[in-house]
Amino acid sequence: MHKLTGPLLLLSSAGDAANIRYAAGFAAPDAVVYLRWGRRQYLVVPVLEVGRAHAETKAVTIFSPLDLGLPRQARRRVDAWVIGLLARLRCRRVAVTAAFPLGLARRLTRQGIRLRMLSSAVFPEREIKSATEIKKIGVAQRAAVAALRRAVRCLRAARITKAGRLMLHGRVLTSEALQLEIGMELLRQGCQPGDIIAACGEQAANPHCLGTGPLRAGRPIVMDIFPRHQTTGYWGDLTRTVVKGRASPVLRRAQRAVDAAQRAALGRIKAGVAVAAVHRAAAAVFQQWGYATELHGRVPSGYIHSTGHGVGLEIHEAPMLAAGPGRLKAGQVVTVEPGLYYPGLGGVRREDTVVVTRRGWRYLAPCRTPREV
Amino acid sequence: MHKLTGPLLLLSSAGDAANIRYAAGFAAPDAVVYLRWGRRQYLVVPVLEVGRAHAETKAVTIFSPLDLGLPRQARRRVDAWVIGLLARLRCRRVAVTAAFPLGLARRLTRQGIRLRMLSSAVFPEREIKSATEIKKIGVAQRAAVAALRRAVRCLRAARITKAGRLMLHGRVLTSEALQLEIGMELLRQGCQPGDIIAACGEQAANPHCLGTGPLRAGRPIVMDIFPRHQTTGYWGDLTRTVVKGRASPVLRRAQRAVDAAQRAALGRIKAGVAVAAVHRAAAAVFQQWGYATELHGRVPSGYIHSTGHGVGLEIHEAPMLAAGPGRLKAGQVVTVEPGLYYPGLGGVRREDTVVVTRRGWRYLAPCRTPREV
Repeated sequence: MHKLTGPLLLLSSAGDAANIRYAAGFAAPDAVVYLRWGRRQYLVVPVLEVGRAHAETKAVTIFSPLDLGLPRQARRRVDAWVIGLLARLRCRRVAVTAAFPLGLARRLTRQGIRLRMLSSAVFPEREIKSATEIKKIGVAQRAAVAALRRAVRCLRAARITKAGRLMLHGRVLTSEALQLEIGMELLRQGCQPGDIIAACGEQAANPHCLGTGPLRAGRPIVMDIFPRHQTTGYWGDLTRTVVKGRASPVLRRAQRAVDAAQRAALGRIKAGVAVAAVHRAAAAVFQQWGYATELHGRVPSGYIHSTGHGVGLEIHEAPMLAAGPGRLKAGQVVTVEPGLYYPGLGGVRREDTVVVTRRGWRYLAPCRTPREV
Repeated sequence: MHKLTGPLLLLSSAGDAANIRYAAGFAAPDAVVYLRWGRRQYLVVPVLEVGRAHAETKAVTIFSPLDLGLPRQARRRVDAWVIGLLARLRCRRVAVTAAFPLGLARRLTRQGIRLRMLSSAVFPEREIKSATEIKKIGVAQRAAVAALRRAVRCLRAARITKAGRLMLHGRVLTSEALQLEIGMELLRQGCQPGDIIAACGEQAANPHCLGTGPLRAGRPIVMDIFPRHQTTGYWGDLTRTVVKGRASPVLRRAQRAVDAAQRAALGRIKAGVAVAAVHRAAAAVFQQWGYATELHGRVPSGYIHSTGHGVGLEIHEAPMLAAGPGRLKAGQVVTVEPGLYYPGLGGVRREDTVVVTRRGWRYLAPCRTPREV
């Protein structure tokens, strides 16, 4: 796995829960401490988790605060776990991440333990997904597709009032109602729903806005669904923009431009291609179509985000498909999600999650959706 | 609010999202930087969040990486935001938490910025909930009650097979099915379900086990529900242990002991009382009833956790109701959740969330449930 031979110390509380899950196969709601030294791996877990840690890990030595002989008042403190573990193993130097907590770093330094800060990713190999990992991401992605289909069915079944609102089963159809339908389907599929975007019109001009209030006909409805599978911990990520009723010519053109930008970006995806080239391909389409990216006051408009990101045990992980260094590698799982955002128009985004292959790419879960319903 | 007059620097990525939400009223899915200097508050938020930050905060100066004049390649790096913000404000010394990232601490120190590490809670006043906060926690708690009722209805409607399994609507009733019912109700109530415990029998002997597989008659079914409200961000926390069919005399006695321990702990709750006294009251009941707390091999059994914890913008926050220093204060919101865990028996836990008052306490949402259904 990792070339590092010196001891590596990771804390779930310092943003390394995904790395620990990746390396040791153990996911805990509470803090855990991970140490890797040569080929050996160690975990300190709460007393209550010792049984589960033994059952769910292989080739990992498990300690509880009791095993480390910590005094009662120190047993709940992760700092004490780290100090106890390093003392037990007679380990006097560790590599840590830049996010390692300052307070504990100072305590360790005072005890003469040498800290070396990693300058790169802890497990760069996490970018390359195994066949098993790709399957797990695929399960989450198919859950997203199922949830999106459900939302599209709701939009299709809704009728449009004279005021341009949507009604379903005698009620005004809102962003919240659509988020609820999507969330319920994700739960049924064994995923945690978390935040769900179902934002309409002006709200969708902010790609982070979850959306509230009544949905409207003839306006873009951006649905961005990123479920995390309850047991595997892997994420999926999918976005579609659908219009209930008829889109205006201006909106329809934006939808076509986004589709074209996604095709252009996907067309570049292949092992060995520069990530920046994928991003440039999408940006070039928008430029050719005459969509400018600029600031309106302090609010940016146009193509205001990058083209994609890696997906795995974290929803956003390496690689980024953006201006910057790096080349695609076979086995990476990335989103491809160009979008356009303008005041007045709102937002249009289309996102799929794909596996990079030596010859190109393939969908984790293809998803056909109409632009208008 | 806070007595600190020197500059205080918080990062959402270093575990301070709840503190930032508390102080500035802003919750972001992405990293944000918060600085408080005297009476002034500053936030650095991603460019895409500037509009929302202005709309959702009061008396906070909002910066984006663009406003700070950061070069393009630094705009995504929170470290650069911090350095840019401190430079803009000519701030040369900051207080930070023990969880502050080591990498950024070193960079700041190299630039001559003095870091002082806080030795206590950032906002100790967060322990005392305002009337508005208590209402918000109450909403989440009522969602938990509604979800629990739904689960109890499922258990009631289930029939028992000859093999002692539960059947509902022609299907084996599992932990997963119960978690799904609970999760759906939480979504309907506007809450994020997150992890849900519905663990039966031996599985329930680990208070952290979520539970999987078929539920069984005559065994304890522990349901621990801790929803977070989607818009307010406040949590609720509720646990009940229910038996489908008849409990054995041994199990029934454990249920009665847990109820008695909760009554004893609640009986001590009042502003001014030592938190340790509340914990001791529950532990004493178990001791009187003859329930020992000890290690079975490396697995602890008996009353193996503390009696409760504070609830607010975090699911576990101060105060802890455990052996240790500190006295209860009016306005604290705490869980009271004694439990017993033994191999063979499984687990029994009962948890309510209450407000500490000058004269005693009151439920956030009372919840009557039968011990057997």
